[in-house]
Amino acid sequence: MPAVTKEVSREPRTARGRQTRRKILDAAAQEFGERGFHESSIVSITQRAGVALGSFYTYFESKDELFRALVSDMSDGVRDAVSPAISNLEPGLEREGAALHAFLDFVRQHKELYRIIDEAEFVAPEDWQAHYSNTAERITARLEEMKGQGIARDVGEVEAWAIMGMNVFLGLRFGVQDDALSTGEVARRAMALLERGIAR
Amino acid sequence: MPAVTKEVSREPRTARGRQTRRKILDAAAQEFGERGFHESSIVSITQRAGVALGSFYTYFESKDELFRALVSDMSDGVRDAVSPAISNLEPGLEREGAALHAFLDFVRQHKELYRIIDEAEFVAPEDWQAHYSNTAERITARLEEMKGQGIARDVGEVEAWAIMGMNVFLGLRFGVQDDALSTGEVARRAMALLERGIAR
Repeated sequence: MPAVTKEVSREPRTARGRQTRRKILDAAAQEFGERGFHESSIVSITQRAGVALGSFYTYFESKDELFRALVSDMSDGVRDAVSPAISNLEPGLEREGAALHAFLDFVRQHKELYRIIDEAEFVAPEDWQAHYSNTAERITARLEEMKGQGIARDVGEVEAWAIMGMNVFLGLRFGVQDDALSTGEVARRAMALLERGIAR
Repeated sequence: MPAVTKEVSREPRTARGRQTRRKILDAAAQEFGERGFHESSIVSITQRAGVALGSFYTYFESKDELFRALVSDMSDGVRDAVSPAISNLEPGLEREGAALHAFLDFVRQHKELYRIIDEAEFVAPEDWQAHYSNTAERITARLEEMKGQGIARDVGEVEAWAIMGMNVFLGLRFGVQDDALSTGEVARRAMALLERGIAR
């Protein structure tokens, strides 16, 4: 028999298994988001998910492994919320604006996202690091395309991290904390900043 | 006798008292920065500080109170590192660049800053919130001055949070994580972005 890693062997093979794993991840997002990692319990998560406690261990080895899987899942969730919103757009600031707009909408619908990613710095530092590295890489790749088409000036890692930081803090302020402005208006103002700066 | 709040009454009255409190805060920054809140202990902090365990309670009621005092102290530290670097400069992007440059230098000298402020989201959420509200208010006030002098376009809370996010993430990437670029170069690139955007 070929050697398989533990993670691969735990990936559910059936649709029903994948559905149960999904239910546990969704319940975990609620539980960790409300209570934080340390106060959350596997018992409570399986109750929220409507899943038998025993079957939890078919999918995850521990609360720690579940948390790490959730961070990775939410990081993929951000990517998969943004990706379809920009897939038909040409490189440019319109595409960056659509990416930010889709991100802000995702945040408003998943307000637990920030608390979970932020707590990962302490509970799952490698996954936390990976989330930001992957996000910065996607922004860098889009900026490279803009550069290649001559529509962005010489931009690189500094600009990618600056834009990521801008997006993350706009998500915190206008996604998680305050719904007063529309997500479209926030994205529009951010793109005006990226297009021509704030100087008069 | 007039009623005094506990905090006021705990503020040391003598230079020696203030010095001891300072030693405890500096040792706490090291301990919390290295071990995180939950793994840190008052015993270990007083040992690092070279202060008797008993005298700790002259200054702080608990580990929790010490942590909250430290977050507030580090938030003031950021402000006090930036303030003299910009006090002689007129409103404008040169001043914003000097602020970011001073912030990045402070971060390189206090790499524990991020871990402590980030953990405050969970351990001392009100102080965490206050740190970002106060920082955003200072940026907003500087932008208002630029607007008043006709050197910034219509900018407000969205732009202030965008700039704060940019600064925070540049500090994480190029202050805490990676020293390869000079802080002056990072600040220069960020100011080019704020001055004229990334569009060609």
